[in-house]
Formats: sequence, C-alpha cells, structure tokens
Amino acid sequence: MLCLFLISRSWIACHGAVKTMNKNLNVVPFVSVDHMLKIILDVGIEQILIELTSYVEEDFKRWELFDKTPRVAMHSTDGVIELMPTSDGQVYGFKYVNGHPKNMRDGLQTVTAFGMLADVATGYPVLLSEMTILTALRTAAASVLAAKFLAPKGTDCMALIGNGAQSEFQALAFKAILGINKVRLYDIDPAATKKCATNLAGKGFDIACCTSSQDAINGAGIITTVTADKQYATILTDSMVGSGVHINAIGGDCPGKTELHRDILLRSDIFVEYSPQTRIEGEIQQLDEDHPVIELWQVIRGETQGRKDDKQITVFDSVGFAIEDFSALRYICDQLERTGQYLDLDMVADPDEPRDLFGMILRAGNAKFRAKLPVAV
Amino acid sequence: MLCLFLISRSWIACHGAVKTMNKNLNVVPFVSVDHMLKIILDVGIEQILIELTSYVEEDFKRWELFDKTPRVAMHSTDGVIELMPTSDGQVYGFKYVNGHPKNMRDGLQTVTAFGMLADVATGYPVLLSEMTILTALRTAAASVLAAKFLAPKGTDCMALIGNGAQSEFQALAFKAILGINKVRLYDIDPAATKKCATNLAGKGFDIACCTSSQDAINGAGIITTVTADKQYATILTDSMVGSGVHINAIGGDCPGKTELHRDILLRSDIFVEYSPQTRIEGEIQQLDEDHPVIELWQVIRGETQGRKDDKQITVFDSVGFAIEDFSALRYICDQLERTGQYLDLDMVADPDEPRDLFGMILRAGNAKFRAKLPVAV
Repeated sequence: MLCLFLISRSWIACHGAVKTMNKNLNVVPFVSVDHMLKIILDVGIEQILIELTSYVEEDFKRWELFDKTPRVAMHSTDGVIELMPTSDGQVYGFKYVNGHPKNMRDGLQTVTAFGMLADVATGYPVLLSEMTILTALRTAAASVLAAKFLAPKGTDCMALIGNGAQSEFQALAFKAILGINKVRLYDIDPAATKKCATNLAGKGFDIACCTSSQDAINGAGIITTVTADKQYATILTDSMVGSGVHINAIGGDCPGKTELHRDILLRSDIFVEYSPQTRIEGEIQQLDEDHPVIELWQVIRGETQGRKDDKQITVFDSVGFAIEDFSALRYICDQLERTGQYLDLDMVADPDEPRDLFGMILRAGNAKFRAKLPVAV
Repeated sequence: MLCLFLISRSWIACHGAVKTMNKNLNVVPFVSVDHMLKIILDVGIEQILIELTSYVEEDFKRWELFDKTPRVAMHSTDGVIELMPTSDGQVYGFKYVNGHPKNMRDGLQTVTAFGMLADVATGYPVLLSEMTILTALRTAAASVLAAKFLAPKGTDCMALIGNGAQSEFQALAFKAILGINKVRLYDIDPAATKKCATNLAGKGFDIACCTSSQDAINGAGIITTVTADKQYATILTDSMVGSGVHINAIGGDCPGKTELHRDILLRSDIFVEYSPQTRIEGEIQQLDEDHPVIELWQVIRGETQGRKDDKQITVFDSVGFAIEDFSALRYICDQLERTGQYLDLDMVADPDEPRDLFGMILRAGNAKFRAKLPVAV
C-alpha cells in the first residue's frame, strides 16, 4: 500500500509555493489521524513543536502577504462551527473546526478539525489533513512563539491551569523551545491533572500537582490558562497575579468565554494575533474597543518591543488565527516526503479534455471499465 | 476492500438529521471521483437528476430554516476560491470550489470542488465528497427546477449556448424532468459542440449543431446560456430574444462575468436563488440595486406566481447557491447505503477520554502499536 502511494503521489513543497511534481492532479494527499500520529512518532513531538514554531514565526514575519479574512462562524445552541481561510497569494488554506464544550460530557472531542491547502494559481487542492491533533500542536507553537518574546528572562517554571486536551502540548512546547522544565498543574477536576501528570511523566519535567490556581501560580514566571467551559470565568483574579509574569491565555477564545479578570488586563500589556478577531473572541472582549493592544507579528518583526522590563505583566490573548493553521498545514506538506505518511485521495475530477466532464461518466460506463469494478457483496 | 468498508462504516441519513448508526465516530465516509462515477452508473444519470432535483426542491421549500451566509471568496489574478457554508440547523454543509477560467487552456478543470456535511449538535464531520461532478449535477438540477415553474408550457426544444463541461448535464436534466428532447447546440468553439453532440448521441435527443447563437435559439422555448469566459459578454442581444421564452442563464456567475444584454433583463421577469448574492454575481449586477427580482423559493412554495402568460420572458439568473450544494451532499449521503460507494477516512481524532488527546500519541508510540506499522520502503 505504502509503496503504491509513494509511486502515485503528487509531491508537494508548500514553503511559499506549491509544486506538483507529477501530473496526477486528480489525487490529493490526505493525512489521516493515524498518519498524523506516525508523523509525530517519526519526527518526535518536541522536534515537531520546534519546527512548527519556526514555521509559524516565518509566516508571522511575512504578515502583510496574507489575506486576513475573518473566520466564518455558525453558532448553534451547543457550539460553533467555523471555517478559517487565508492565503499568502500563492497557497490558499482553510481549516474546518468546531467547538462544542458539551461534547466532553458525551465522550466526544470538544474541538475537531481538518484542513486543506490549494494552489492559488489553479484552485486545485494539494493537501487534505486531519487537524484535531495538528491544531493542538499549532496552538502550543503559537503560545511558545509569543512567550519567546514576552516571558520574563530566566524563568524555568510554568503554571498550567486547565489540564485538558491542550495541556501536554503546551508543556512540551515550552520545555522544547524555552527550557521550561517545572510545570505546576491545576484543574477543577483532579482526574484531568492526574491524566496530564501521568502523560508528562518521564519526559524531563519537575511536575507539581496543585490544589488551586493560587497554588499553581506560586513561583511561576509563565501562567498558562487553558480551560474549556464556555462562559465568562475568572480563572485568575487581579490579586493573584504579581508583577513580571507572562500570562499565556488560551482558553478565552470565543464570544462569552473568558478566563482573566478584567483588572488583570488593565495593568498588563496585551499582545494578540489579529486584533479585529481578538476583540470579538479574546479576553479583550471585556475591554473598550479602542484599548491598546499589540499584534504579535509586530514584535516578531522587531517593529515593536515585546517585554520591556522585569516588572511588566504581559498577556498573550490567544484565540487561534488562520495563519497559524496555514503554517501547520504547510509544515505537514513538507513532512509528506520525509515520512511517507499519507494516502492519495481520488478527489478531483480531471478529464483529459477539461470540457469533457460528462465524457468521464460515459467512459466509466463502458464495459471495459465495468469489468474492473469490485463485485458487490 | 469494499466488504471492509461496509463493516466499519458509519451509516448516515442526512434527510434533515444526521444519524450515526455505530460508534466509529473517527471515520468519515468519503466519496471519491471514482465512487461518484459509480454512483451515477449504479443509479443512472437521469434518475439521479430527477431525484436530486426533488432534494433541491425540498430544501428550497424549507428556505427559512437555512443559515444563508454569503459565500467567502478569495479573488486572485487567475480566478477565485470560495467556501460556501450553510446549515438547516441540524446539518451543516459547505463546499470548497474554485473558478479559474484560464485553467482550461492548461488542460485543467475550470471548476473543481469538494464538500462536507457535519452534525450541528456535535460538530463532527459525517460526509466528505468530491463535488466537481456533483456540482455539475446540482447546477443542472437547480436549472430544471426553475424551468419547471418558469418555462413556457408545451415547449420541447432548448437552445444550449456554451457546450462545455456543464452542457450535457443541462440537456439530460431537461429531458428527464421536462421532456425537452430537442437541443440546439452552439459554442464559439465547434469542437465543444461536437463533443457535446457526441456525448448526447443515442440518448433520445434530436440534436442540432448550430453555427450561431441566433441559429441556436430558433424555435427554442428555453434558452440556456452556459459559457465560461470571465468577462462581460453578450451571448444574447435584445433583438434576438422573442416573447414567451425562458432564459436559463448559468454562465454569468461572478462579478464582471455576465452573458445577457441588459435590455433583455429590463423586459424580463427575473428569478434568482438568493438575491443578496445574485446582485453581486449574477446578470443583475448590470441593473440598479433595487431592480425587482423574485427568489425562486417563493415560486416553489406558491407564494408568488412563476410564469404568468405565454408572452412573458422569464430569466433564471442562476449563480449557484450553498443550499443547492447542501441538497446535493444530502442526496449523496442517502446513496451511501444504497450503493456502498465510499471509503471510510480516519479523519477525526477520537480518544476514549476526550481530554486525553495526547494519550493517543503515547499509545501510538508503544511497542505493540509500532509492530503494526507498515514497513517503510
């Protein structure tokens, strides 16, 4: 099977441009959940987080090239379904993603996702990939990229409040890229903390399982909040947060869902991905519409200072942005040849004469073709 | 292979609601191009067009239930890439579709598409399907649905101007549903006309290959214009169009792309899918913003009259709307069990404990799992 895929594949490099190495334009490489797991195992999760962070950084550096369409959301009683498109002018990408907090109670993922890349010049799809796991990786990559510019120097300790599906990815990214090896875990559900601690055991962390948010942030230079309930919550109150920390606020990511008390925001410098989106979805939905914020790409490009001194409180008010997904898909594209982990999908009707789409049906119907059909069971 | 798919499949009925018949929530049925061809062969193309038209009609009848988001378009020099989402409150669907007129010169499809359905209650995808062929089917279904209410009574002859990828589907739909068995073909490229005539040969048509638009419309009660160039074109001038005809205007479907002379529109009654979209993309982009138009669903529901008399010129200014794609995907969903033509994709990461996404990676890495990995070649 694998051999067959390798022979028939369209090899693609998505670093800025899409190159199709053969003429099988009808096939689109598909990275399944199983493929994604194998890519992670082949490359190594910390190595992937390092590489993925550099891809996100590269794309944030060329921010002005991207088409920054607001995400298209359809809200329902139980959650939201979103399409997040973007393009750098050469490659187009989008992610389908849902957010259904109630899912967890039914044994389902709160967030599932898949995404694709296409060639802007032709509109032909060039990659389809699962993105439930990939979103977890890219969210951690975006967090650590912000922290690289915003976290206090010399800290080796992070509080991780909310020990759900994203927590281990955060911990591993911060260790791999910033050397944070002390993690202080807290979740309102001790079973979640136990799960996270068990999963991180033996991976080079000094792990503390804490009994409260207050306990968790004790001595932490970085505070990551990544809780899941869809409501205005106050995971951190103003008095809990001392000077000099960096708050990596992940969980407040849609209208009506925040984690930080407003007063923390008022005494912090706030960094965001794309302000028009974050003002609707992020922690700053609690603030005036013109409250000053800095877009992270400005810091990465050196156009604005990140952390100024060791007293400053910095907040990365992360909601997840389409460019991060684009970077992640671009990264996975570059792993296809490296790992061979994909399946070619017969996804695009591509008749020899483009106007003869109907002829495909006629040819499929001829006796010769029918003889090749599998016998129905 | 087929047997395996049948055993492990998630059976779905998408008629208004999505029912997942087993617990393999990680798998999403995928209908490839090859599967789509086999579905068409199994069911029969005219039968599919009949059934699909009834699905579109059903959905137009429940118009008010649908979320009518404008399509999200990204325009580039060579074309456009669009996402077309909608939902009836229970099922969410979207289509990815490109339109690149230049593609034809490079031997590529002008339009390629794929789409998916998801369960609104959980956000989980339930169907992924090729839609290049399916779009051709649904476009013809929408055309014939409009003509059912708008075409002059008793006509058995249609002019088909533009003999590209959509033309045969139009002809077959009009024959299957309205009994139109005389088609008068014209294209600026005689090779396209020849291709269309050849493909339709032996299918019960009286086919005339014409040398001009004027020639083609001679005696035709229905005039279908379905040309592809992205420009303001005048396929039909005012003096060519006599009273009593129905014009099925398919090709003018994006800003800057029209087919009919404005004066034809001014003496016609104009019917559209969704007026906010058609005013931007359709023939009526040539008219004042408040020029009266009727949405087709109003006619189908009997709230407004369609054709009033045998002198009236009616125009269906069709641009393609997300609900039609939804109907088409819903139809394909209902063919999965009937035909068995799909492949289960391992598309959604679905750990037993939803918060333990990371645990999937750990488990995948254990020796037992690794032993099952295919040997790399």
